[in-house]
Parts: sequence; C-alpha cells; structure tokens
Amino acid sequence: MATLDPDMGLLVRRAMEGMGITMVNGAEVTKLLTGDDGAVRAVVTEDAEYPADVVILGIGVRPETALARAAGLPLGEHGGLLTDRSMRVRGYENIWAGGDCVEVLDLVSGQLRHIPLGTHANKHGQIIGANAGGGYATFPGVVGTAVSKVCDLEIARTGLREKDAHRVGLRFESVTIESTSRAGYYPNASPMTVKMLAELRTGRLLGVQIVGREGAGKRVDIAAVALTAGMTVEQMTALDLGYAPPFSPVWDPVLVAARKAATKIRASL
Amino acid sequence: MATLDPDMGLLVRRAMEGMGITMVNGAEVTKLLTGDDGAVRAVVTEDAEYPADVVILGIGVRPETALARAAGLPLGEHGGLLTDRSMRVRGYENIWAGGDCVEVLDLVSGQLRHIPLGTHANKHGQIIGANAGGGYATFPGVVGTAVSKVCDLEIARTGLREKDAHRVGLRFESVTIESTSRAGYYPNASPMTVKMLAELRTGRLLGVQIVGREGAGKRVDIAAVALTAGMTVEQMTALDLGYAPPFSPVWDPVLVAARKAATKIRASL
Repeated sequence: MATLDPDMGLLVRRAMEGMGITMVNGAEVTKLLTGDDGAVRAVVTEDAEYPADVVILGIGVRPETALARAAGLPLGEHGGLLTDRSMRVRGYENIWAGGDCVEVLDLVSGQLRHIPLGTHANKHGQIIGANAGGGYATFPGVVGTAVSKVCDLEIARTGLREKDAHRVGLRFESVTIESTSRAGYYPNASPMTVKMLAELRTGRLLGVQIVGREGAGKRVDIAAVALTAGMTVEQMTALDLGYAPPFSPVWDPVLVAARKAATKIRASL
Repeated sequence: MATLDPDMGLLVRRAMEGMGITMVNGAEVTKLLTGDDGAVRAVVTEDAEYPADVVILGIGVRPETALARAAGLPLGEHGGLLTDRSMRVRGYENIWAGGDCVEVLDLVSGQLRHIPLGTHANKHGQIIGANAGGGYATFPGVVGTAVSKVCDLEIARTGLREKDAHRVGLRFESVTIESTSRAGYYPNASPMTVKMLAELRTGRLLGVQIVGREGAGKRVDIAAVALTAGMTVEQMTALDLGYAPPFSPVWDPVLVAARKAATKIRASL
C-alpha cells in the first residue's frame, strides 16, 4: 500500500494479518514453480517456498509510449505523453492522447503525475471525442483519489501523502483520528481511521487517507471535492454533510479530522 | 417525503409499497383507539379504522421560542431566533442561541430557513462555546443536506428542490438519471436515481436528490461540498471521485447527473 503513508499502510497490514493473511515484505521472488500440468504450485524466494494455487503480480504500471517516443512526440519525466488542457498532444494540432499513456496535472501539487485509472481514461475519451468532433471540452486535472478493498477492509486516499508534500516544498500539519461509520449506538457501526494533512499558515487541505470497513472508502469523495475547490480545513469544519444515525456520527469522521487539523493549524500560527 | 420533489417522493412511495407497506395520504386522523390496558390498538380516519400496536406521529418541528418572544428577542419569519455569524442573538451582546430554536442562512438560496438537525445544533454548540469563552468561531450557513432510511431504502437531498428554486426566483434545468451503486458487473450493485438542478446561464449546481439502496445516501455529500464551493455542473463533471468496481461505476452516479445537466445547460445557452 505505497499509495498511503507508512502509518496508515500499517493499519492495512494489521487488518490483513487479522484476516489470517501472512505478509512477507521485501523478499525477492526468485522463481515460480509449476506442476506437471503447467499450473503454478509454489512461489520461491531466497529464504522460503510458498505453496500457491494462484499468483498475482502487483508490480505497478508504466505508460507504454514506445510508438509516441519513436514518432518524436513530447514525453514527460514519468514517461507519459504531454498534452494541453484539451488533451491535444503538445505541439501537434491533430493528435490527441488520453488514458494510461498520458501525464496529468495534479491540482494539489501543481506538478505532472502518471495515474493510470479507468475513471481518468474515461473522462479523457469523452473530452477527446468532443474536441476531435469540433466541440469543446477540457480536462482540468486530478487530485489523486483512489479507493480499494481487501476483503471487507476499505482503503482510500486523495491529495498528497506526507512524502508528496515534502517533495514539492509544502509544509503541513498532520492529524489522525478514530471515528465510526455510523452513530456509535447504531448497529454495525464500524471503526474508521482518518488522516488529514493541511498546509501550514494557509490551512489549505492537502490530503486525506482513510482505512476502515463498510462505509469508509467513499467518504474520501468529501475531501476530493474540497481539494478541487481549494478549501481550508477551517472551512471544511462547517460542511453540511448528510447526517442520520445509520449513515454517520453527528460529526462525520472527515469533519472530526478537519476540526482537529484546524485546531492544530491555529495553534501553529 | 415533502423534503423531496414529488417525482422523487413517488420513488419512495413505490419502494415502500413494494415492501408491503400500505400508504394512505391526505386522510385526517380523527381518533386513536385504546384498549382496556390503555395501549393504542387502532388509528381511526374519516373513512377507515387501522389496527395498530404502535403509532408514530411525524408532524414536523417548530422552534420553541416562547421565552425568547416574551423577552423581546428578534425572531424570523419561521419563528426562530435571529443570530449573527457568531451565533450571537442579533443586537444582544451577551446572548447566544443555537440548535432547533434558531434560523440559519441557506447558502444556496441566500434566505433564512429553520432546519432542526442534530448536526447543525452540534456545530452551533461548539461555536457558541468558543465565542462565549473569548475565542472566535462562526457558522457560515447550511446547504440543506438531509439523509434518511426506510428499511434498506436510502433517501438523500441537498440544496434546493424545484419549488424552493421557484420561490427565490432561480430558473434552472433539471435532470434525472438512473445508475448503480457499484460497477454493473459487481455483486450487489443496486439501482439508484439521482435528480440534479442547475441554474440557467451560470450552470451553478442548485440541488441534488437521491433515492436508492445501500451506498446511495451518503453520495449526497459530493453535492453538499460542491454546493458550498459554488461549483457549476460543468466543473463537477471533472471531479476526481473515488473509483473502483466495489464502490462505484467508472462515472459515479452524481457525475452522470452532472454530465447530463451540463449538456442541458449548454444546449439552453
């Protein structure tokens, strides 16, 4: 879970271990053993051999831009094609590009990133279609939202992690809070951890990470919209979010984090 | 469900009828019959008698401001106390008021409303405490978010309904879309209806209503934050919301509505 800060990633690790999943980090896979039928039967590392029915490789994604490179099209530092706001390849009137092969503007850091996600690719496709057909549409950029599941564990993030903020010279306060998905007295209220980063002095929201169970993940959308709008954590404390006991505590967990972050920012001024 | 437009309220009615609940609207209750043990046993209307073990009266809420009225404090047209942004009663240096007895500014219509909700009352309490204690905090207003459940049906709204917009002189386009809570191919994807109002010319989001099942209700928060930020539906189409098949179709239902609304606004220009 390199998409989270290590402290939040640790929550995922602990939850997975609680599900009976053995975690082995930092071990190099040297071999995959197959049986007589050609199907995989074990993963071999330098120190051990793990029996396996299925092996899943999660090794990241890089843009496939060999054709673009050979054609002399402009590529960014992450290897993705560079486009303008209309998804036109920079400097080429009649070439558009979108999806996993392009770099996109991160609205929070102001820098280009490579984020291969279906939701961006789908938007790009629509924008390119509109422009290629003589219409007008633009892609303003992303805030880096992602959500995923491990069994019933929900994991979400948007904006900058601590190391992202450091890299672009943003100083921040960081808070982490525990809350629940529903009012505490309501059946099936499940615990949730929310981490929030806010810029020093301005109090601008920089990022949110959430680890919890059912109802946790999509709460990241609150922060995704707030990031897009450039809200401060102080402004966020007043957000009029949906409240009823089956849906949220009276202060939504994201607002509890915003309150704590706003207090910390005020104290730092 | 007067909190929704009639077309969306009809979805709630149909869903409740589908649960085997008999709906009787517009009938005046003339009497509650009790048994020998003093417990209720039937509800009587002009035309019928309904056996009952429990009777729940949902008759609305009015601010209890008799004391304030007797003391000559300023009340608004809905009968609630009028405060400034610090929740100080207008014109009274040392009296603060919050919760169900005050009127609050609706940020979308620009008018005062009476919205008795625990989440607002809780914010008011914190703000009053800060100010009474010599600190500084303010309540900017509300956007009219509410979410509720009927069995597994989730019902949510934020911003203005059609009649609210008419009342304050706002003209709008309205769209209604059908989508699902998860990717269509994912287990337990459930249908969801989203209605969205956007102001003519400006395209500013005015309101959202959602009726669906699990995962539908809290999506209203996306619109609540967008309303607070004064976003247009065109801007909303680019929102970077959490996407993975267990959480959302590749275009979140709120974005599907925003796309359709933006198309309609462009066509009306």
